[in-house]
Amino acid sequence: MPETLLKQRLAEELPPIGAALARATERLPEPVRPVARHILEAGGKRLRPFLTVLMARLLGDAGERIYDLAVTMEMLHAATLLHDDVLDDAASRRGKAAAHTSFGVTQAILAGDALLSGANAQVADFGDPRLCRCFSTATSETAAGEILEIAAQRRVDVSAEEYAAIVRGKTAALIAAACELGALAANAAPDAVRAAADYGENLGMAFQIVDDALDFAPAEETGKPTGGDVREGKLTPPLRFYRLNLAENERAAFDAAFVCGLMSAADAAEISLRVREGGFDRRAREEAQDYLEAARKALMRLPDGPERPVLMEMTDYVRDRRH
Amino acid sequence: MPETLLKQRLAEELPPIGAALARATERLPEPVRPVARHILEAGGKRLRPFLTVLMARLLGDAGERIYDLAVTMEMLHAATLLHDDVLDDAASRRGKAAAHTSFGVTQAILAGDALLSGANAQVADFGDPRLCRCFSTATSETAAGEILEIAAQRRVDVSAEEYAAIVRGKTAALIAAACELGALAANAAPDAVRAAADYGENLGMAFQIVDDALDFAPAEETGKPTGGDVREGKLTPPLRFYRLNLAENERAAFDAAFVCGLMSAADAAEISLRVREGGFDRRAREEAQDYLEAARKALMRLPDGPERPVLMEMTDYVRDRRH
Repeated sequence: MPETLLKQRLAEELPPIGAALARATERLPEPVRPVARHILEAGGKRLRPFLTVLMARLLGDAGERIYDLAVTMEMLHAATLLHDDVLDDAASRRGKAAAHTSFGVTQAILAGDALLSGANAQVADFGDPRLCRCFSTATSETAAGEILEIAAQRRVDVSAEEYAAIVRGKTAALIAAACELGALAANAAPDAVRAAADYGENLGMAFQIVDDALDFAPAEETGKPTGGDVREGKLTPPLRFYRLNLAENERAAFDAAFVCGLMSAADAAEISLRVREGGFDRRAREEAQDYLEAARKALMRLPDGPERPVLMEMTDYVRDRRH
Repeated sequence: MPETLLKQRLAEELPPIGAALARATERLPEPVRPVARHILEAGGKRLRPFLTVLMARLLGDAGERIYDLAVTMEMLHAATLLHDDVLDDAASRRGKAAAHTSFGVTQAILAGDALLSGANAQVADFGDPRLCRCFSTATSETAAGEILEIAAQRRVDVSAEEYAAIVRGKTAALIAAACELGALAANAAPDAVRAAADYGENLGMAFQIVDDALDFAPAEETGKPTGGDVREGKLTPPLRFYRLNLAENERAAFDAAFVCGLMSAADAAEISLRVREGGFDRRAREEAQDYLEAARKALMRLPDGPERPVLMEMTDYVRDRRH
């Protein structure tokens, strides 16, 4: 059972992470608490706070306060999801109705702002400028990544490099910061802080690449509509490979529909099938391997301790996940 | 000429404030810079950064770096305006087209997020946890104030206390923080930091109350549509006084139109006329006097210096402004 250690430790950490999230929600302005609860309780893997806690423990932090720091990363992630939902006009998020369709655009924007500023205040309460800088850099990079992604929407000429810059911002920066915050809270040496951030950044890159590959999986496997990225005009790696493999006349038709935002659900399903048949999703997953290998190498620069094998298993989890 | 000192000093400070804003804009992700420039160059009084600079100078900071701190307050203010524009669906802002109507909702939300996180990062760069805490508290309070305001919209039972809590959050918190940041940057003693924040908070309360009174002034005087708050369902003090003064059957008609959001531009113009004739806007301005008196008292707890009379004149400016 390759995930035994990971599952066991996650089961131990989820209750205190959940309690810290509940405390943080109580500190938000009363009118947005239902929206915040909706998005925070929609599930999610708590990957980010879990990483903060693991890194802090591995590097010698034994206190309970780490949970209040760790959940700021989940709050920031939730704020991003709320604003993204409005931007993407996404019909559903994590299987539940998107917050802005249940609560309205206004509430989704305001709750996102409240979560972001509440997380910021919660980090500032630690009184450590390194934590503030780490948090605010992650926030800026995440915003920049989303901006680049929107600017790249419905463009068929998004390069591999451009895609990597988007992913680095919108996903990897926050996961790197989650790891770095844990290391900083443990007062780790600069080398260890750097290694923790490197692990997180590479893990985050792989996480998003796999996520993009999973977008083409059948809905019955993932619980999400197939080919959502096709319809939203996101040229992720599997789609880029697929497009390059098309005959010239097919490519022209694809480009026209993609650029004009005319892809139907049926188009998306058919393209997804052809992506899977062509192995383009598998090929993208293979690219994730390089990042995971780099994450493992970064991990070996950190001290050995009970959390290191858990963090190691995390790279297998990211590689193998099916939903 | 009562405003001579104020105008003179503002003329001196505007160029370095503008230069710092231009530097900050250059640091934002490229795709949102046009939106950020649009909102930042729409004018505005630069009241917040000006206050930061004045407080810092009064309390002994002589460095040039203060401008990079000061403009974070204008960036935060601009972020708020961008998101508010989307929320209010405002047709125009500061006389120019609202950013989200020229650039789209997506760009307005993203540019707001980028300005907020960019400002946060710029404060964190100072490496002083007191600055981070002051900034993040102001951000949280501003978000909370906006949330309370939206929750109070189209309600006819908004009390004076509830209104004060809204204003304290949405306007005064940020102006207080602008003053406090200046004092903190100058390494002022805790008493002086407190006095600077008190001055800013009271000035901010008065500023918003006067702003709400000006909403009923003729459009040809202010350059803004008359009675915008009536149409947006905001029961500001002049409107509260007006409503309480109505005969019972008139009040029922007012309430029905206000609660259901059915006020036309003609309704708003007529109500504004009656607000002015009844002196309800003047009565609200009188309430601002108490706050301005408190601001002046706070100012007298600060050392005498060339900036103190400027800050004193600022209270007259807030009291007397006509647009």
